[in-house]
Amino acid sequence: MNVLDWNTLDADAQAQALTRPVQAVAAQTREAVAALVEQVRGVGDIALREITARFDGVTLEKFEVSEAEFAAAELVVPAELRIAMQQAAERIDAYHRAGMARPYSVETAPGVVCEKVIRPIGRVGLYVPAGSAPLPSTALMLGVPARLAGCREVVLCTPPRKDGSADPAVLVAARLTGVHKVFKIGGAQAIAAMAWGTETVPSCDKLFGPGNGYVTEAKQQVAQAGAAAIDMPAGPSEVLVIADAGAVPAFVAADLLSQAEHGPDSQVILLSDDAALIAAVQAEVEAQVVRLARENIARKALDASLLLKVDSIEQAFAISNRYAPEHLILALRQPHDWLDLVEAAGSVFMGDYTPEALGDYCSGTNHVLPTAGAARAYSGVSVASFQNQISVQAASREGIANIGPCALTLARAEGLGAHANAVAVRLGVAP
Amino acid sequence: MNVLDWNTLDADAQAQALTRPVQAVAAQTREAVAALVEQVRGVGDIALREITARFDGVTLEKFEVSEAEFAAAELVVPAELRIAMQQAAERIDAYHRAGMARPYSVETAPGVVCEKVIRPIGRVGLYVPAGSAPLPSTALMLGVPARLAGCREVVLCTPPRKDGSADPAVLVAARLTGVHKVFKIGGAQAIAAMAWGTETVPSCDKLFGPGNGYVTEAKQQVAQAGAAAIDMPAGPSEVLVIADAGAVPAFVAADLLSQAEHGPDSQVILLSDDAALIAAVQAEVEAQVVRLARENIARKALDASLLLKVDSIEQAFAISNRYAPEHLILALRQPHDWLDLVEAAGSVFMGDYTPEALGDYCSGTNHVLPTAGAARAYSGVSVASFQNQISVQAASREGIANIGPCALTLARAEGLGAHANAVAVRLGVAP
Repeated sequence: MNVLDWNTLDADAQAQALTRPVQAVAAQTREAVAALVEQVRGVGDIALREITARFDGVTLEKFEVSEAEFAAAELVVPAELRIAMQQAAERIDAYHRAGMARPYSVETAPGVVCEKVIRPIGRVGLYVPAGSAPLPSTALMLGVPARLAGCREVVLCTPPRKDGSADPAVLVAARLTGVHKVFKIGGAQAIAAMAWGTETVPSCDKLFGPGNGYVTEAKQQVAQAGAAAIDMPAGPSEVLVIADAGAVPAFVAADLLSQAEHGPDSQVILLSDDAALIAAVQAEVEAQVVRLARENIARKALDASLLLKVDSIEQAFAISNRYAPEHLILALRQPHDWLDLVEAAGSVFMGDYTPEALGDYCSGTNHVLPTAGAARAYSGVSVASFQNQISVQAASREGIANIGPCALTLARAEGLGAHANAVAVRLGVAP
Repeated sequence: MNVLDWNTLDADAQAQALTRPVQAVAAQTREAVAALVEQVRGVGDIALREITARFDGVTLEKFEVSEAEFAAAELVVPAELRIAMQQAAERIDAYHRAGMARPYSVETAPGVVCEKVIRPIGRVGLYVPAGSAPLPSTALMLGVPARLAGCREVVLCTPPRKDGSADPAVLVAARLTGVHKVFKIGGAQAIAAMAWGTETVPSCDKLFGPGNGYVTEAKQQVAQAGAAAIDMPAGPSEVLVIADAGAVPAFVAADLLSQAEHGPDSQVILLSDDAALIAAVQAEVEAQVVRLARENIARKALDASLLLKVDSIEQAFAISNRYAPEHLILALRQPHDWLDLVEAAGSVFMGDYTPEALGDYCSGTNHVLPTAGAARAYSGVSVASFQNQISVQAASREGIANIGPCALTLARAEGLGAHANAVAVRLGVAP
């Protein structure tokens, strides 16, 4: 872990301290993904079968999970896990439902009524990774808002295991959220299949979910090609903790480690105005890390982590806003007094008893969040991510009499005669 | 204009009829834009000056519009235009304000409160084209929601005229919406400047606005590079009209023409279940087009336009949803009875007295809308486009006691020991 004092750094060193490792996609990766995407687009299921054999080591006759497989998964998943997923889904539902956009209508001039109507995106594709570990929680985080939005068709892809089956917990999670069309396809090939469609996989309007570098690059490529929209650009996961002198070192250390275990490229930052707290957290991290199953991964992430001494908590917020973390933990006394200072972050965790893990799983908020500073201009997944908002206007004869002259003036000023004419012909005046 | 009967076409011909001309970006364009972007990123204002001299034919000492220039613009813009812009801005404000997202809070379990807070995106960049005609209306469409969102810094770029000035109407429109930082920079170089920042142009978190192929490609490139988010992918403007036998041919023709005059690549489609109406519209288009100042442009767009006879209005909606038009005009009796059938469109215009021109200028809705079928998964610009929605969770000791075990179970199932530990250390139990 790197311990620095922010106020001893010059502007360049400060900028350097907050610079994420460049996530430049190697030209090699880009080309490999482009080849996979092109192959799936061109040859469909035959390509999927070949690529799956190559990367997942299994030859699949059928990609779609059958009723029998869903039923088998129900038998395998322990009751405790099933109940936990159900409870998590209920809280995710409660939080996301409360934030749903509502249609509205406003009369902007006598006889001119402007509405906003909300429609589900027709077909959406969810990607649930299963690399170092399958992530049933991600199936919940995507499936619940898709169901609330009312999407007509929800497709989910997740990589097959060596024996050709899908992870049973992911299947149970999918079913819990009403997703019935699950395909055992992983990686860039899954993204290509959902974007362009194949004989068995429907083409989707928008794709969601995290994934490794190949998945992320494939999402960028299909979005760029206009084949499907995507939820957001993705990068390695990250946490920034702002802690005051009253914070509990063992809790803060555990939070830093729970981020560090995600992967060697995870970003972990602690800001505190108290040097003693920083030292205590450092000692606690050392004490806790040796007990972790994923110690090696965590240690690699910790090598690049940053413990930053700041002059004040206000300064910590300024730095945090500049960095725009995916996860922001406020290990502060009276954290709500500070909330107004948060300008850019994916999700915020308040006080000593709200570890990030609660939001990752079951507080009710979404864990698909903007990384790599994207929180400056992107928000996490919500029901709105699965909906189109369509504006609707209706002018009566009286309405166009009221606002038509305004449109005429503007159309003329912009030199758009046919625009003026479309108004004039209805008003019975010269354009 | 091409007149076809949908039900005489086979599936391939139907698909062909709805296929937009490919907007493939020529490799040449992509490389030219990449070179411009790289130059601005690397050399800043010096590059901007050189590029502006090359493309706009004017050498600018200062890019930023001065107070004196704003004052001069106020004197030049006719009172009638100024009033029209003010009225339009007021209605845009009323409609967008009514749709603003509100923060909310929900207790998802005893002791677990999840909130959504809303923050303006810090720095946003607006692009207002001034190619064949300057578009002050676009300054209103972007400036009003940016102001409602409360963005800290709003930058606007618009191309300089040959004499080195900016279009006065654009300046007045910018001022009307509270935008004070206007730069006389156009094209891909403006996008690069707002994304990466230069000595004089601040780097922005998100870029908005329409533009020609170079601007659009530059937006894609800076978004791809992670330098700035963008509002949406853009393509040529388009309208789809659904008209029944009772529609007024002169009105429908005027609407088709007001789309056609945008550019030779504008998309114009009419669907009707009444052959006589289609024939009458055709005759009216011929009668009206000769009176247009932009007749040549309109004729080119009309060459590729499509008048489609359908069996029923229901079928027309199915086709429209498949096409997902930017603008959808319902020239129908009782248009509200049909609104539920609209699944994907940018903006909808109801009945005989709501020409698209009203929404383009002053009904109150936004005219920055998804094109090229993006309406399947993107919405038009709104206040939300200028905001981040941040989730916030706060668990008390009681809260984590209630939901912590659920998180523990899920973390263990996913093999994430440090996640489990972050909860366990607070519960005082084994991870």
